[in-house]
Amino acid sequence: MSEKVIVIYSGGMDSYTVLNHAIKQGFDVYALTFDYGQRHVKEIEYAKNACKDLGIQHKIVDISAINSIISGSSLTDEIEVPEGHYESDNMKQTVVPNRNMILLSMAVGYAVSLDATKVFYGAHSGDHAIYPDCRPEFVQKMQDVCAIANYEPVDIVVPYINNTKIEILTDGLKMGLDYSKTWTCYNGREKACGKCGACQERLEAFELNQQTDPLEYES
Amino acid sequence: MSEKVIVIYSGGMDSYTVLNHAIKQGFDVYALTFDYGQRHVKEIEYAKNACKDLGIQHKIVDISAINSIISGSSLTDEIEVPEGHYESDNMKQTVVPNRNMILLSMAVGYAVSLDATKVFYGAHSGDHAIYPDCRPEFVQKMQDVCAIANYEPVDIVVPYINNTKIEILTDGLKMGLDYSKTWTCYNGREKACGKCGACQERLEAFELNQQTDPLEYES
Repeated sequence: MSEKVIVIYSGGMDSYTVLNHAIKQGFDVYALTFDYGQRHVKEIEYAKNACKDLGIQHKIVDISAINSIISGSSLTDEIEVPEGHYESDNMKQTVVPNRNMILLSMAVGYAVSLDATKVFYGAHSGDHAIYPDCRPEFVQKMQDVCAIANYEPVDIVVPYINNTKIEILTDGLKMGLDYSKTWTCYNGREKACGKCGACQERLEAFELNQQTDPLEYES
Repeated sequence: MSEKVIVIYSGGMDSYTVLNHAIKQGFDVYALTFDYGQRHVKEIEYAKNACKDLGIQHKIVDISAINSIISGSSLTDEIEVPEGHYESDNMKQTVVPNRNMILLSMAVGYAVSLDATKVFYGAHSGDHAIYPDCRPEFVQKMQDVCAIANYEPVDIVVPYINNTKIEILTDGLKMGLDYSKTWTCYNGREKACGKCGACQERLEAFELNQQTDPLEYES
């Protein structure tokens, strides 16, 4: 029997690549999606369909109740989604306080319940500037605490922590992944907007990989 | 304006003591109660009333959705609550995988949202043997990660980490606290059962403080 692992999987392109990376390493993969009342609930539909296609276990956990205590992000609050590139200052509005620790702590609880040994998640170097909880230092300290928080240690694995979003896509394309099965846009309309920070980063990654994004865009 | 702090407050006697300890230190206290589908939902009613009496802010967050991924505890599952003293082996059934990391991570998110600087919680030395996430080593490593997980550091404060439940009660009695405002029993019947591990520990603490528990018991 192969080793069980949890993959935190949003339905976006980075975590889709991490998911497939873990499957290709031969792990028995359990995908875990959190619904924290984000606007791009379409990501969750994409996540569901992708797990069905891959034939892997998938749990969706609704943690939107925490929005009553955690605020400050345009991804969950009723304020405008900022347009423009992630590196702009206004993209700091997309920070959900302590998000990754919250998601990782629940994923680790799931791992302990299943006797899984690892939790994979998809932070990458492009996030470092904006999100403190995507930095290697954060990952290291989470690994330290997750090693001793339960009777059995759980490892936090962040395969692309030192890679850019562009390099993640390069790896995924090498694996032959079909990115039309992933959703990235912060606006949950029928087609991706092409204008929000998430869309712009995604389009840039395809451009720099000299590939066309198979997803349909509004403009 | 005084410094804002979060206190994780279950409605039980230890966290009631921590809550009052924080108030007496002059902090602007925000009490935070998690409903994770535990049997002793009566604790939450006690928590609500106590915060009303103290005139402090109180949030209750329903995180019972995580029970779909986290199991193994008789506090949330439909298996018998074990009788007997906590130190017995069967009390290990009361372990919720990764519980304190999950609760602390959400409390830290709340702290960041409010510009609060600290999160108080009520682990004590009597828990060390059974619960890995009540040990000083766990607290230290959580402090390390919470110092860097967000733009502003949040401190994890565990005032009774090196005290027994008996000593917590001693401190609370010194503060003049009325423990009839706290609920401990794992069975949520009208009166406390007096037999479960939680009741036995509580009764023992009162006995060793040469005081009578003001709470009503079945037997």
